[in-house]
Parts: sequence; C-alpha cells; structure tokens
Amino acid sequence: MPSKLILYIAQSLYAYIAAPNDDLSFLDVVRADTNKGSEDYGYADFISTIGTVLIGRKTYDWVLKQIGNYPNSEDKKTYVITSQEKPSEGNVIFTNERLKSLIHWLKYAEEEQTSKDIFCDGGAELANALLREDLIDEMIISVIPVLLGNGIKLFADDRPFRKLELISSKTYESSLVQLHYKCLISREE
Amino acid sequence: MPSKLILYIAQSLYAYIAAPNDDLSFLDVVRADTNKGSEDYGYADFISTIGTVLIGRKTYDWVLKQIGNYPNSEDKKTYVITSQEKPSEGNVIFTNERLKSLIHWLKYAEEEQTSKDIFCDGGAELANALLREDLIDEMIISVIPVLLGNGIKLFADDRPFRKLELISSKTYESSLVQLHYKCLISREE
Repeated sequence: MPSKLILYIAQSLYAYIAAPNDDLSFLDVVRADTNKGSEDYGYADFISTIGTVLIGRKTYDWVLKQIGNYPNSEDKKTYVITSQEKPSEGNVIFTNERLKSLIHWLKYAEEEQTSKDIFCDGGAELANALLREDLIDEMIISVIPVLLGNGIKLFADDRPFRKLELISSKTYESSLVQLHYKCLISREE
Repeated sequence: MPSKLILYIAQSLYAYIAAPNDDLSFLDVVRADTNKGSEDYGYADFISTIGTVLIGRKTYDWVLKQIGNYPNSEDKKTYVITSQEKPSEGNVIFTNERLKSLIHWLKYAEEEQTSKDIFCDGGAELANALLREDLIDEMIISVIPVLLGNGIKLFADDRPFRKLELISSKTYESSLVQLHYKCLISREE
C-alpha cells in the first residue's frame, strides 16, 4: 500500500493559521497548563507514523529563525520546496521538482517499503499547491478556540470544490478540537 | 437569569457560509440519506429552547424568495434588522433600533420571564455586528465536510480577537461536526 500525504496543521476557528506578520501567539490559548503536565494533542503519536516531511521554503526559514533548527529533520528526510535548488544539508533536501512527481515518487517508491506516511508541515502556499493537484490524502486540523480578526488563511480562494470524510474528531480540555478528514477526490481523471 | 443570544449556523470547513451568489448547494453533502429517515442535526431540540429570532434583512428576504415564507415566524417573534423600518407583519417586526439596546431589552425584559433564548439566524453582516459589540453568548457551528473555493465568509476581517470555550462537539455519520462554543468576553469594560 502506498503511503499517504497528511497535512497536519492548527488554525483558528475561522480558518486563519496565523495573525498578520506570521504571529502565532493565538496558539498560546491551548498551551498546556503547567500544573497538568504537557498535552501534545497527539503529536508524538502522529509523528511516529511519519517517514518524510514536506515543508515550504518560507515556513522552513521561519522555523529556523524562531528556534534555530528544524526539529523534524533530526531523524527524518525533510524536503523543502523552493524555487531555488541548493545542496542538501544532512537530512534536509532543497528541491524545485514538480510536486506531482516528487509526491508520486515518495508515496510509491520511497515510503512504500517503510509503510510510513508523509507529513506536510505547511505553509499555506504549499498546502494550496498540493490541494490543487489532489495530492493531499488526509488533513488533521486542530481548531484553536479563538476568533482572529485578520490573518493568513490556510487555503487560498479559487480552489476547486472538495468533499471530505471525517475519520475522527477529538476534543481536549483546552477547548481544542482536532478534526481528522480524508480528502475525497471529486474530479474526473 | 437573562436569556442567551445564540448564533446557530452552518459553514464549510474553511469558514465560508455560502458559495458565490449565495449558493448553498454545498449543504447537500449532509442532507439526510432518504433510506435512513431525516437527520436534523439537533435543530428541533435547539429551536424548542428559543423564544425570539433575530435575522438580517438580506437573509430574511433571501429565505422568503427561496421558500415563500420564514418558517420560524409562525410561532416566534422575529426581529428583522433593517435600516428602513416598516410596519410589523404578524410575528415579524422590522427594526432599526441599536443592536445593543434591542438585545439588552430582549435578554433582560422580554425573555427573562420565559427563560427562552434568542437565536441569530444570520447573515454574516448581522453576526459581525453582534460580535463586534460582544453581544453573542454562544455559537453552534455545523462544520460541513467540504472545502469551498470561494464564497461568503461568516466573519469579516478586522474583528477583535475573541477567546472561545468549547461546550460540546458532536459528530454525525454524514461527517458533519457540530461545535458549540461559549464566547468569552476578553475586552476590558
């Protein structure tokens, strides 16, 4: 069985994944209460099923700037999607290959042997490009219990209509709801 | 105890409440399978707790055009928020009163005796105006399992930041997830 490409992301109730200027401070409302130990919202379980990470170049640079390194690349091959190729750095491969070919190769050749999945870690631009080509198999969306007045939307306008099937919905004490959807392919091929 | 103002609305996963031209056909993906009888997603239970309905003028006109009458006004006082006052028609009161005064009067005078709640039936313009003035107490949002590429957003940009508290989350066989939030007042007053 080929592996799946899974988009795993947090958003505010109204679809903003960041406030203006990439401000992610709204995520603080669901950060673990220090008295209760840390709640990781299933992230450790999820990441243990992942063999390869896919991330857009801007988001990758943003993470590097914020915390100095990209933690997933410590033990996972990480493809940074960029318009300018440059040499690999350890597990990090910078690529401008067509998404369709790259994903097809990852799903059917690279990950089929390990039966691990592929994780899209954002950002919005990459998620959109993948969705447009029907390359996302599942989405795990953590709905943060806030309304943001402005911000960066996960998906751009003018996308084609897509049906989804709910795989599961989990609620947490912090009011976070995690929705896990399967993307149904609706277009004729 | 004063009654509550509750916004009860359906949206696609990415916050669109209608496709362009007020097209609501995306709601068809969760219409009941005729073999299984009809699933009303808790609407009958909800509406039995409601004493008064609040609706924007455009949305009211849209419903009249679609189905010939506004069903809730059969047995409930219905306030249509409009810039042009006109005479009442049965249970339907057209009003241009300030929202704050109207809601305050409804909550503390009119509905307190009946202990019934107030239902905001949309549209986006009215929901925004109510949210801006911190007049919405709870939101029941039915997340329809589709991505729409374009459309009408429930909330406009430049709203203030608001925290929410999850009251409950229900999932249905059709993949619809119904999120029930309490709106927390965050601004200093």
